[in-house]
Amino acid sequence: MENFTFYSPTCFVFGKDTESRAGALVKRFGGAKVLIHYGGGSAVRSGLLARVQTSLEAEKIPFCLLGGVQPNPRSGLVYEGIELCRKEGVDFVLAVGGGSVIDSAKAIAAGALYSGDFWDFYSGKPIEQALPVGTVLTIAAAGSEGSPDSVITREEGMFKRGASGDAIRPRFSILNPALTQTLPPYQTAAGITDIMAHLYERYLTNTKEVEVTDRLIEALLLTMIHEGPRVIRDPDNYDARANIMWAGMMAHNNSCGVGRSQDWNSHNIEHELSALYDCAHGAGLAVTMPAVFTYVMKHDVMRFAQAAVRIWGCQMDFAHPETTALEGIEKLRAFLTALGMPRNFAELGAKEEDIPRLVEALCRGDGRPGYISGFVRLDEKDCAEIYKMMV
Amino acid sequence: MENFTFYSPTCFVFGKDTESRAGALVKRFGGAKVLIHYGGGSAVRSGLLARVQTSLEAEKIPFCLLGGVQPNPRSGLVYEGIELCRKEGVDFVLAVGGGSVIDSAKAIAAGALYSGDFWDFYSGKPIEQALPVGTVLTIAAAGSEGSPDSVITREEGMFKRGASGDAIRPRFSILNPALTQTLPPYQTAAGITDIMAHLYERYLTNTKEVEVTDRLIEALLLTMIHEGPRVIRDPDNYDARANIMWAGMMAHNNSCGVGRSQDWNSHNIEHELSALYDCAHGAGLAVTMPAVFTYVMKHDVMRFAQAAVRIWGCQMDFAHPETTALEGIEKLRAFLTALGMPRNFAELGAKEEDIPRLVEALCRGDGRPGYISGFVRLDEKDCAEIYKMMV
Repeated sequence: MENFTFYSPTCFVFGKDTESRAGALVKRFGGAKVLIHYGGGSAVRSGLLARVQTSLEAEKIPFCLLGGVQPNPRSGLVYEGIELCRKEGVDFVLAVGGGSVIDSAKAIAAGALYSGDFWDFYSGKPIEQALPVGTVLTIAAAGSEGSPDSVITREEGMFKRGASGDAIRPRFSILNPALTQTLPPYQTAAGITDIMAHLYERYLTNTKEVEVTDRLIEALLLTMIHEGPRVIRDPDNYDARANIMWAGMMAHNNSCGVGRSQDWNSHNIEHELSALYDCAHGAGLAVTMPAVFTYVMKHDVMRFAQAAVRIWGCQMDFAHPETTALEGIEKLRAFLTALGMPRNFAELGAKEEDIPRLVEALCRGDGRPGYISGFVRLDEKDCAEIYKMMV
Repeated sequence: MENFTFYSPTCFVFGKDTESRAGALVKRFGGAKVLIHYGGGSAVRSGLLARVQTSLEAEKIPFCLLGGVQPNPRSGLVYEGIELCRKEGVDFVLAVGGGSVIDSAKAIAAGALYSGDFWDFYSGKPIEQALPVGTVLTIAAAGSEGSPDSVITREEGMFKRGASGDAIRPRFSILNPALTQTLPPYQTAAGITDIMAHLYERYLTNTKEVEVTDRLIEALLLTMIHEGPRVIRDPDNYDARANIMWAGMMAHNNSCGVGRSQDWNSHNIEHELSALYDCAHGAGLAVTMPAVFTYVMKHDVMRFAQAAVRIWGCQMDFAHPETTALEGIEKLRAFLTALGMPRNFAELGAKEEDIPRLVEALCRGDGRPGYISGFVRLDEKDCAEIYKMMV
């Protein structure tokens, strides 16, 4: 195991009706003037936004509002949010929504205390300070509610890039599984896929002898395999929603990813798809993961065989471990398809003729060196092959 | 799943040579005058204490020392530590040792800011404030490095009781697995048993539909089953030590126990043994757990069958689930015995004739109502039966 630091000081308030505690939590974590950041109409229509506002009013905490965050959140709204924070003297950013809203809130929080262009953080500059961030989560997916990460799409060039730093970890996150019961099945399934991808990205490691994190990742994947189909069949199943919601946080706060190298090639390859086609990130991952895993499988057949046996319940073919390894990847593909996720470019809305453009953006965009690396190093030719496998 | 709050703001610094960062971490978390609290000679002999002192000196942080913590830490030294903190103007308590040292440090930290008797906290009074605590951990066992808990033995009456509160969660914990390589096998095994007990106490729940935490607990138990025998055979196996150390923290910071009722009957029943006979807590648990589990098994046979199949790899006997449930308990017993743990009162140094006294202390001591309760409620007769099963 490699040396590491793990610091996850987010206060998670989990369960029914917990959004009513937003005001008290903002107060506890020092907020005196709040920006409430949110997305489209669902937080308004469901009455969630009004409940959050009421809870701030009960604590006599003034706030301003900035809605309109899109899935695959854009830099334009981040600049707007930064301006608003400065103008209004905001000292706390409260995200009410899913991963896109939270990621946008984190970018605003970091940018508000930085004199340069906030995009610097998404080009590799460390985030040293940020306004405190709180969240009221409405979808189990991105894990941004417990992570130090944020992904934003830059509108010039449509690059999707990530930034990370302890300063943007939420101070508190309110997780009410009941809020996810009204999600359309496709969004629920895309969230499940994203959570599973966060686990696979950590599972694909070159670090040896990491049994504890292997087992924790497997535990969370087994949970998703058990609960995923249940919430698709029965969207109002609170307990299944709750198990998925906690698994989604645990999948990405990195308690199960410490001390080991991680992959993140699937995420990077997918990011160009959702940047270009504005598809759901999870849907893009459903198409991307099986292709990437099949392409890189020979790098460590036994790791994929372990996944097949321990996660997917396959029988080990001791004479032909590759057969077992592939079977596990096929089980993942079939599982995601059964949830309603797309299988290929056509179902995703992507086009074969765009592959050169995707590869260029992936490997050269925003100063990249002509390759990406994680579990294995993938150059432009590899990436083109992988995109072709998805057609 | 039940509503819950999970807040674990400890900064974990994990890996080789990390004790050299103690001074920098004390500084980061605001310590200006430190009490270094430690146990017997091993921290001195190994040079660990000197390395920690050097790292404080490098940051120009003054400190005073209080050693002498015994396993099953006593109230007397806590009173001494509280006095010392007040006299010296200590504002940060640094524990260098195992769970006993950390628990004692937590008691001192809470008592130093309290005008009454610190034992009040161990009789149920909430801990509202405490000096900040940091730890340099030397054994994977109690999980106190990441928990809000502390257990102290009151010398008048030899009661062992626990206190809990976010204020005594460590601000940072330094976890260097190499420090555990020099432990005698018996202590290593007792630590492994304690970790497994923390997991079983959470596994035995009356809350339905808690797949995510079930799976996480199973993952950590599977890790212990894999790594436990490896460190007993090969004490210098750093990776196995590292997996156990992270599992030990995760087993008790409660990320795998949230939103579900828990048991803790085995711990309570054991505490009277280590209080009276001063045996290792883990050794006492090795004798206690199989007896308790066998006694309460019929309360939820399928839960014990699930443990047997998922944790111990038993084949499910669908016609006779009790057979499978019992087989899992027997596998636990055999596993602990193979690690070198005692099987009964005689091997532990306990005496059958003391059972009435143990039951009295357990069920009536320190204001208890004549029973203990967790997974099931156990009255004096039940507890006497369970102690008899251990003879």
